[in-house]
Amino acid sequence: MKEKKFIETKLKSKKVFSGKLLHVFMDDVKLPSGGESTREYIKHQGAAVVIPIMDNKILLVKQYRYPTQQVMIELPAGKIDPGEDELTTVQRELGEETGYTSDKIFRLQPIHPCIGYSNEIIHLFFATDLYESNHEPDPDEEIENVLLKLEDAIEMIYSGKITDSKTIIGLFWAERLMKDKKLRDRFLTE
Amino acid sequence: MKEKKFIETKLKSKKVFSGKLLHVFMDDVKLPSGGESTREYIKHQGAAVVIPIMDNKILLVKQYRYPTQQVMIELPAGKIDPGEDELTTVQRELGEETGYTSDKIFRLQPIHPCIGYSNEIIHLFFATDLYESNHEPDPDEEIENVLLKLEDAIEMIYSGKITDSKTIIGLFWAERLMKDKKLRDRFLTE
Repeated sequence: MKEKKFIETKLKSKKVFSGKLLHVFMDDVKLPSGGESTREYIKHQGAAVVIPIMDNKILLVKQYRYPTQQVMIELPAGKIDPGEDELTTVQRELGEETGYTSDKIFRLQPIHPCIGYSNEIIHLFFATDLYESNHEPDPDEEIENVLLKLEDAIEMIYSGKITDSKTIIGLFWAERLMKDKKLRDRFLTE
Repeated sequence: MKEKKFIETKLKSKKVFSGKLLHVFMDDVKLPSGGESTREYIKHQGAAVVIPIMDNKILLVKQYRYPTQQVMIELPAGKIDPGEDELTTVQRELGEETGYTSDKIFRLQPIHPCIGYSNEIIHLFFATDLYESNHEPDPDEEIENVLLKLEDAIEMIYSGKITDSKTIIGLFWAERLMKDKKLRDRFLTE
């Protein structure tokens, strides 16, 4: 694809906020039209999310999300620690958040949650054969397991009770994988 | 649901960056465990995204996204202007981005793209009966229409060519709506 005509070129980059979590940048860019503009965005270290299957159900978690001021039902997920392999992130976060982990983990396709103002990428995985983990829970996280039949979880998307985008994508992927042998052969083989 | 045990209470809120697009806050919070922590997040005005059906295909757009440094294929979407009704946002953004708009627009369920660090909500709509719009394109946006068969768009999710989360969710919804009359009766009635 000839994409040159779309591309914005960096002229100058400035870090405008650096917190414990968020690193915010404001760049001057040259537009393909020749004009100039500014772009504000977050640099993020990336994250991983997993669809864990337990007893033919989906293992989700419930936790409070301060930015949305809501208790939300989500797939287990977390940020990639510096230098950490994404598969390790998944095993660790699954263990810390649910008390279970897995060695049967399959990679699906990554997603960009927030392309308007963040470079975050979330790597998506599918896990079976869960077993009790010896990962310690994060003492700062109040979190609870929610084991749902897939059809009940999907209904919670339709009724607006599950609104987290990575979770919606994971649940839709899960259903497709369950129904479609070709897709399983494509993604769930070692 | 008794959710009290999860909830984090605001102690102090501080605006740490205010740009043209991003408004970043850092709050001190009291954790349900009794401890204290800080939460960094973005306040966002909300957005709307639409699944536009044209000639039995899906009308997407291609544009450069500076934060991810990629040309991305997406459903038409945009931020809600202050005081604007979400349906008006959809009609306007669809017109500005694709040159087509619609008066047959149906509301699905909203999504939270980025619950870890943003309060953004994206309202999701489904549009049929497109017609040429008189909305002027945004001169700062280099954007191009991409009309795809639904199955080809879904294959682009599987092959990692479509990674934008709101777009993946919209395409999965679209397929479900096409296949499931009950779901159409639930969401696509006036």
